[in-house]
Amino acid sequence: MSMKEDNFADWYLDIVEKAGLSDKRYPIKGMNVWTPYGWKIMRQIDTYIREEFDATDHDEVCFPLMIPETEFAKEKDHIKGFDEEVYWVTHAGLNELDVRLVIRPTSETAMYPMFSLWIRSHQDLPLKTYQIVNTFRYETKQTRPFIRVREIHFFESHTCHVSEEDAQLQVEEDIEILERIAKKICLPYTLLVRTEWDKFPGAHYTVGIDTSMPNGRTLQMGSIHHYRTNFSVPYDITYEDENGEHKHAHQTTFGMSERLVGALIGVHGDDQGLVMPPGIAPFQAVIIPILSKKNADEVLAASKALMSALSAAGIRVKLDDRDDRPGSKYYDWEIKGVPLRLELGARDIENNVVSFARRDTGEKGAIALDDLVPGVRMILDDISDNMLARATEVQKSRVQDIDSTENIPQDKILRFGWCGCEECGHKFEDTFDFKILGTPYHPEEYQGKCIICGKPVDKPAYAAHTM
Amino acid sequence: MSMKEDNFADWYLDIVEKAGLSDKRYPIKGMNVWTPYGWKIMRQIDTYIREEFDATDHDEVCFPLMIPETEFAKEKDHIKGFDEEVYWVTHAGLNELDVRLVIRPTSETAMYPMFSLWIRSHQDLPLKTYQIVNTFRYETKQTRPFIRVREIHFFESHTCHVSEEDAQLQVEEDIEILERIAKKICLPYTLLVRTEWDKFPGAHYTVGIDTSMPNGRTLQMGSIHHYRTNFSVPYDITYEDENGEHKHAHQTTFGMSERLVGALIGVHGDDQGLVMPPGIAPFQAVIIPILSKKNADEVLAASKALMSALSAAGIRVKLDDRDDRPGSKYYDWEIKGVPLRLELGARDIENNVVSFARRDTGEKGAIALDDLVPGVRMILDDISDNMLARATEVQKSRVQDIDSTENIPQDKILRFGWCGCEECGHKFEDTFDFKILGTPYHPEEYQGKCIICGKPVDKPAYAAHTM
Repeated sequence: MSMKEDNFADWYLDIVEKAGLSDKRYPIKGMNVWTPYGWKIMRQIDTYIREEFDATDHDEVCFPLMIPETEFAKEKDHIKGFDEEVYWVTHAGLNELDVRLVIRPTSETAMYPMFSLWIRSHQDLPLKTYQIVNTFRYETKQTRPFIRVREIHFFESHTCHVSEEDAQLQVEEDIEILERIAKKICLPYTLLVRTEWDKFPGAHYTVGIDTSMPNGRTLQMGSIHHYRTNFSVPYDITYEDENGEHKHAHQTTFGMSERLVGALIGVHGDDQGLVMPPGIAPFQAVIIPILSKKNADEVLAASKALMSALSAAGIRVKLDDRDDRPGSKYYDWEIKGVPLRLELGARDIENNVVSFARRDTGEKGAIALDDLVPGVRMILDDISDNMLARATEVQKSRVQDIDSTENIPQDKILRFGWCGCEECGHKFEDTFDFKILGTPYHPEEYQGKCIICGKPVDKPAYAAHTM
Repeated sequence: MSMKEDNFADWYLDIVEKAGLSDKRYPIKGMNVWTPYGWKIMRQIDTYIREEFDATDHDEVCFPLMIPETEFAKEKDHIKGFDEEVYWVTHAGLNELDVRLVIRPTSETAMYPMFSLWIRSHQDLPLKTYQIVNTFRYETKQTRPFIRVREIHFFESHTCHVSEEDAQLQVEEDIEILERIAKKICLPYTLLVRTEWDKFPGAHYTVGIDTSMPNGRTLQMGSIHHYRTNFSVPYDITYEDENGEHKHAHQTTFGMSERLVGALIGVHGDDQGLVMPPGIAPFQAVIIPILSKKNADEVLAASKALMSALSAAGIRVKLDDRDDRPGSKYYDWEIKGVPLRLELGARDIENNVVSFARRDTGEKGAIALDDLVPGVRMILDDISDNMLARATEVQKSRVQDIDSTENIPQDKILRFGWCGCEECGHKFEDTFDFKILGTPYHPEEYQGKCIICGKPVDKPAYAAHTM
């Protein structure tokens, strides 16, 4: 296996292959096959996302994949933002289609003609929907599993509200949902309001959700958009208010993609393989029976009892009873990043304990069998806390304040003064080949000067090289 | 609402709309929007399907949507069978593609190039995979929600084996899985080996899974295929056996689509709306509090306690505490087909019972609160048993034996002698405008004569008008 510190790019591809996450040998570049373990991880994440959206009164829907060009073209900035990266269906069977069909790059233009039919009165609002589907972008840059692909698994929530203020409250709720998702995956993140030239095509404003990777680059895992009425006007999404007046709905969206998998590989993995956050690990614990000829039956029976007890308590556990050496099994499950390894041998049974090894720290110890379920839960919680704390520490250490354009560090996330004008922004990006990620969504204490024009500013901007 | 007996087609569309299952106003004909309640039903079915495949050691995967024309064309019968009904992606961004891409109509040609890489030795077999995705067919016939659509939600399992016999055992396992799925949805079905001219393009043989609808037509809900080595030869899927010899794998597939939803609407629904099978009902029971001014708080608190107790026992239950008349709520949940309605008022609380009404029979009664969970479970089980028994009875009554071609009943499933030759088969189909569904997969006692040529035969054929 490649070493994470030496060569992040190779190490990343190695993990994806050796942990069995996806296969990039499919005969279309950037469209990869989700192999069983990778898909299990994605499905754990999806399951949690569904819990969150269901608990916040979002209805799950599923919209068609294809969008007629006529609908796709209704919002002008939107089509301009996407027309270089969509796939076009032009023929069906032996016929050429009258109206070409776009394969969804995102679902605004599929959903909004229907929202226009669904919404009649203020009583139909808020309308809160989400779907979990695959989306398609004709990527021209170099592809990389989960991070830059042409078929992208993602969720997208779409909401409609009576007013800009109500839509703003939805953005706040989205941030609360995001906070819980990120905690589940132990991923630190920043919320930055993107620059005007980098916001989502058609949005009023865009909040980018970024994390940082071991090579110093940031990875955008998702985004939240406030649309105001930018889409409801061209798509005619109106409601009758309490006074009988017709008004346009205010809209928001929130989406995150399979980049969450890319992020958890990069943020948590090490030279032994993946390190899975317990919250979404397909297997939170693996049981390895330590068998000798004399006591194989007894140890196997005790291992099965252990598995049953943990399963019954809702812990996702795997018993590895393959006919193989324990050391070889350890190696396999380390690559797959199972948070907790439980080993059970004759000696453990005698002492009424099970031995354990933590994947995150390597720490070893024993859990009293009388205290099995709370003992395992406590360790899993501690692994989660430790993984998030460690990752947060690393993310913080990657941010560097700069107050001049001399000797800009290349592997850091830069924090600096920017007056906010496009001219200074473009000049900074073009001169130093950094991308401005934006300004903090949640205000930060700051006093400084625009790094380009010197004007005094009271909020910082962030810039980085991006994945 | 239209009446089921009078006009099945209108009744069906009415139910789909009024129960909120799907919206067919999307601007591409035959590509419908899954609205929340319809999608909840589909997801319940998917969840059960996953349980079944996981329990039988199938690995869930997710393959790309698009297939290069070069891969798609490798098996000659297969492409001939599909080229009139696939969607073609010819452009991406502003470029014309060098190799056109097919939007998956089914995934043989996406999966098998990868299987060829994955399988090396007999130890890699059996390979058992499945995926739950949407698939696309350019339907030219009239479309109908869930029954004939252009974007189709379905599952497909694909397996590879060392021998024809092992593949045959897989077909047997598929039939066991099917039996459990059908029981869960209370759907009777027949297993018929399709005629040579109606089998899946590329298959060795195809078993069609049909149910019958109230208009006398049959609906194919899915199929199981034995491919022998028909695909493994062109796709070069080989393994090294124990003697070091290279052999082609034997393959099978099994798939069922959202037609399961169409079937359950048609088979179980009545003039009041849907009737949901308890096994996959999004809500197995709905609680309606019967409030009066005097006791509203008390009844609402008791209703919430009822809901908690049922939820904790794993019963999917909804408390309808909307500010509306009970009668109006009854009406809504009848349309949505919730199997069991629970009503709780002051008198019920006094008597320590909850009143109930069954959706399948309309029967009313009371359950002792001390016996709540087992009482509800017993009724749900009885509803399931009754729905399946009733549907099976109806399906049987629709089959009619015929021994001559005179006065063929138009609204029946015909059972008759057929020598099996293509000439007689085509003659029967063309002359009487019936489709031969095939011959029983499980042998049936039969002695008769070919209805066309008069040759003696010892197995029957079935024919019907199809949806």
